[in-house]
Amino acid sequence: MAPCVSLLLPVFAILATLPVIRSAHTFFPRPSYDQSLARQPDASKPKIPYKAHYFPQVIDHFTFQPKSSKIFYQKYLVNSHYWRRGAPIFVYTGNEGDIEWFASNTGFLLDIAPKFRALLVFIEHRFYGESMPFGNKSYKSAETLGYLNSQQALADFAILIRSLKHNLSSEASPVVVFGGSYGGMLAAWFRLKYPHIAIGALASSAPILQFDDITPWSSFYDAVSQDFKEASLNCYEVIKGSWAELKALSAQKEGLTELSRTFRACQDLHSLDSVWDWLWSAFVYTAMVNYPTEANFMMPLPAYPVQAMCKIIDGFPSGASKITRVFAAASLYYNYSRAEKCFKLEHGPDTHGLHGWNWQACTEMVMPMSCSQESMFPPSGFSYKEFAEDCMKTFGAKPRPHWITTEFGGKRIDRALKRSGGNIIFSNGLQDPWSRGGVLKNISSTIIALVTEKGAHHVDFRFATKDDPEWLKELRRKEVEIIQGWIDQYYADLKRLNNE
Amino acid sequence: MAPCVSLLLPVFAILATLPVIRSAHTFFPRPSYDQSLARQPDASKPKIPYKAHYFPQVIDHFTFQPKSSKIFYQKYLVNSHYWRRGAPIFVYTGNEGDIEWFASNTGFLLDIAPKFRALLVFIEHRFYGESMPFGNKSYKSAETLGYLNSQQALADFAILIRSLKHNLSSEASPVVVFGGSYGGMLAAWFRLKYPHIAIGALASSAPILQFDDITPWSSFYDAVSQDFKEASLNCYEVIKGSWAELKALSAQKEGLTELSRTFRACQDLHSLDSVWDWLWSAFVYTAMVNYPTEANFMMPLPAYPVQAMCKIIDGFPSGASKITRVFAAASLYYNYSRAEKCFKLEHGPDTHGLHGWNWQACTEMVMPMSCSQESMFPPSGFSYKEFAEDCMKTFGAKPRPHWITTEFGGKRIDRALKRSGGNIIFSNGLQDPWSRGGVLKNISSTIIALVTEKGAHHVDFRFATKDDPEWLKELRRKEVEIIQGWIDQYYADLKRLNNE
Repeated sequence: MAPCVSLLLPVFAILATLPVIRSAHTFFPRPSYDQSLARQPDASKPKIPYKAHYFPQVIDHFTFQPKSSKIFYQKYLVNSHYWRRGAPIFVYTGNEGDIEWFASNTGFLLDIAPKFRALLVFIEHRFYGESMPFGNKSYKSAETLGYLNSQQALADFAILIRSLKHNLSSEASPVVVFGGSYGGMLAAWFRLKYPHIAIGALASSAPILQFDDITPWSSFYDAVSQDFKEASLNCYEVIKGSWAELKALSAQKEGLTELSRTFRACQDLHSLDSVWDWLWSAFVYTAMVNYPTEANFMMPLPAYPVQAMCKIIDGFPSGASKITRVFAAASLYYNYSRAEKCFKLEHGPDTHGLHGWNWQACTEMVMPMSCSQESMFPPSGFSYKEFAEDCMKTFGAKPRPHWITTEFGGKRIDRALKRSGGNIIFSNGLQDPWSRGGVLKNISSTIIALVTEKGAHHVDFRFATKDDPEWLKELRRKEVEIIQGWIDQYYADLKRLNNE
Repeated sequence: MAPCVSLLLPVFAILATLPVIRSAHTFFPRPSYDQSLARQPDASKPKIPYKAHYFPQVIDHFTFQPKSSKIFYQKYLVNSHYWRRGAPIFVYTGNEGDIEWFASNTGFLLDIAPKFRALLVFIEHRFYGESMPFGNKSYKSAETLGYLNSQQALADFAILIRSLKHNLSSEASPVVVFGGSYGGMLAAWFRLKYPHIAIGALASSAPILQFDDITPWSSFYDAVSQDFKEASLNCYEVIKGSWAELKALSAQKEGLTELSRTFRACQDLHSLDSVWDWLWSAFVYTAMVNYPTEANFMMPLPAYPVQAMCKIIDGFPSGASKITRVFAAASLYYNYSRAEKCFKLEHGPDTHGLHGWNWQACTEMVMPMSCSQESMFPPSGFSYKEFAEDCMKTFGAKPRPHWITTEFGGKRIDRALKRSGGNIIFSNGLQDPWSRGGVLKNISSTIIALVTEKGAHHVDFRFATKDDPEWLKELRRKEVEIIQGWIDQYYADLKRLNNE
């Protein structure tokens, strides 16, 4: 049976259709998201008040070859409703998906814009959404995908922001960058690499330490398991035991047929893998979005969905099989609205964003993950060799597992950034398994870690709701206070330097 | 007649053979240097005690294309005589030339190595010296030259240093980077972009503000002029007036013949341009290396060569022509050892290093320069359009005049780096015309400007001599003290963090 790392793809996607899935990890499951948006329009969610623009961007900022001066159009969204000239510019450094999605799930910026009279700008990441450098051939081969990486993306942001400020005659406006998940990594790195462009960064749920050997490889799945264990020890044990039951059943004659029935598969199953993936994704993504209020980030879910899942598992009569229980739990994730008659467990062809992230995971974003004996998933290791073979097969590209830590650092980050850098908030919620690869301790007086025990994947970035708990309000209040401090300091420096 | 910007090429080369010369600026005149090394071996100079190594380096760090995974061998020099494991590593971030030249002209590192028990490493810049990614075809076209730029060079340094530390089992050794001129720019930028790899940088004579519109375009030639004016007002006026005399003479029948005779040209002159270049270079480079002691950096020269030149100019009887005087003055630069019977005023084909720098000047290192009415050179402006046309003609590449300031900053640097970065010394001597584009004021408590009134182009990096004046000893003492402070702090941080 496939090992733990093979089936999941943490924060970004369900990769069952790709060999590389077997080790690539992604932040957001685009297919599920697409489905949920299409089928479950959230009437309560405000239509995002942004205007789309397109910026001519050079395809390669770091080589100067005749063909690399090719231009593509990078999408960005602007809201200038609250802005007055000279006031701050808040930029969201887009991650692996269309920028509207991030805009609609980062209500925080709209919530705080009036206080700062801020201009809001969401910049789409190259090779995602509409920002396709080679149109529908962008994902064609390593030849085109070669231009998809974080360093090119950061340079895109730098050039676009500089141009925007120039066009708005607002060179003196302070820029603060914001990002969540991979976007949070980009925001933090942008502040580190381009301090002359952004005065500070709020990086929410940014696992910048998930690389190389900085964070124990098993920590991600251990964290998922801990969420469930904390909700209910029995729940954790049922899930942990379910894999063996599934394996045994599938090995029986007519086992797959029975599984198809139990899991209400729209089409008969051909292997256990898809069930495995389907369950795995439900548990991992639910842990990530274990928000304190009802939300619809990846799927519509109730408040504290991990607890809700465990309540389902624990609620069965004692004789019920583990398989029945985990199916019911996972159905909460896939079918909270109860609109589904059957489930498409075997996924269709890859969507674009997914393939883009896989490319990044195969080249630069190499985040090794394994499952320990203590996790609720079947134990398994991580092999660079197998990972590299999968990547070579899928993309014809070799991973560079040490590149991110060479380019951006991360090892002994406390030592490295104690005397350099500044004005970064790393916010993490410990419910989010990605938090284990985040910065969880202050590095200096201006590189701050805000950690909430009950927080999940960039919960702070969501629109405020009337049901938000006190700790969440307090977290956002602190963030606003620190950002206000950067801005005040910036204007004070400006005044002093202008007077010198 | 060619305008000022057209004929000179400040700190790097004599570009008369290239159209692009007309506006590219270079730091070191390689042909002169090559000649001087070949013909004037300086017996007093110690043979450089370094061992050469070669590191397999990827050609393109920022795109992941099949062909860009090509490997080339990057040369670096190591001296481990004073080192013990765990002690600091001092890295010179090589600039536009073969690394031996920089090693032999940076005696400072050998002088201070025993005190720090430091490992010394000089890394050659890609596309210079032996570090030619495409062998003798490296300069063939924009296709190959495309990989020659500062960002790729910085990534080279990062990867090589990390690998070196790993191989030496010295991951905890603090790295300090050093560089002079363009190498100083690289050292400062390296500390800003890779703070996790270098704990500090000493950037000597690094004109990181010579870009865009940060520094007035006329400041470089104004500074050259000021050196001469301070030495003698008459000297300045003679030089300033000589261009018109030269122009008038060359317009006469047999004028060029007479000029050939006056300038002891090895071959008859075909135009005034070469005389113009020849003089221009002598004045500019002499201002740059207006060292307080006898030295042989680009050419063998006496102590304070600007003063020596002016003494020659002023020493003529009152009836002597300006032309005779400037020729005699320039002869000090080209023929201090009096070994030359005639002068090769019309240069032969370009040398490699020169063409490499021209490429960089045409793409990223765009430093606009003009000559004001007050300079001792004929007044002239700078036109981006003409510059771009020349570059397009020579290399088929378009300059990106705002790229360096987008990638590395520079505009309002005091504001940008007040709350970020740290542990950088910018040292500048005001005799050096490049100092005008340097950082001349402290930016923060750890980004320090050390300015000496009598200093010239990275004078601090030269071997200490018994004749060094007090201010130079004091400058080096301060540098050592600050670097010692970084290192002490690093070890203290390390100890504290290890105990936490």
